[in-house]
Amino acid sequence: MFFAMNRFRIARGREADFEQIWSERNSHLDGVPGFIEFRLLRGPEEEDHTLYASHSVWHDRDAFTEWTRSEAFRKAHAGAGARQDLYLGPPQFEGFESVLDS
Amino acid sequence: MFFAMNRFRIARGREADFEQIWSERNSHLDGVPGFIEFRLLRGPEEEDHTLYASHSVWHDRDAFTEWTRSEAFRKAHAGAGARQDLYLGPPQFEGFESVLDS
Repeated sequence: MFFAMNRFRIARGREADFEQIWSERNSHLDGVPGFIEFRLLRGPEEEDHTLYASHSVWHDRDAFTEWTRSEAFRKAHAGAGARQDLYLGPPQFEGFESVLDS
Repeated sequence: MFFAMNRFRIARGREADFEQIWSERNSHLDGVPGFIEFRLLRGPEEEDHTLYASHSVWHDRDAFTEWTRSEAFRKAHAGAGARQDLYLGPPQFEGFESVLDS
């Protein structure tokens, strides 16, 4: 199982705007082969930002990689890059393989 | 739903030792109220370390907090602090609330 996470640093006070963007988007993930689950996670509040993470779960890394090359991915990210005032820097991608569960 | 993650920076070449510690431990998580799932995740390889994350899912933040105050938590972490040679610095805890799923 593969976990794909993008970490976003959102300016304090703009959290509701950021969450609204996600709630209104069309993820185009339904029916994507190997896709299991998506969540938006709100993490720790720091002095100048709140950390968020997009958290998607995939059957394996290949399924995720295939999606990033697909038309569905292009459509899902068509609006990315707007509202730059919300962000402290670009998102940071981290991919994880599940090596143990209990 | 609450996601509790600890990020570990493991010295390059020591990844198998780190994974073995986790595979041999007793998590004492079975039957803990509000506990849903645990995984150990292996993330990106950097020049001097590989990032790992312990990834546990809870019904809510309160369930996680209760567990951290329990005897089960104390038992699960009795061996923590050993094998300091594997780690580049202390683990970094991050707790996340799920604010959206799709």
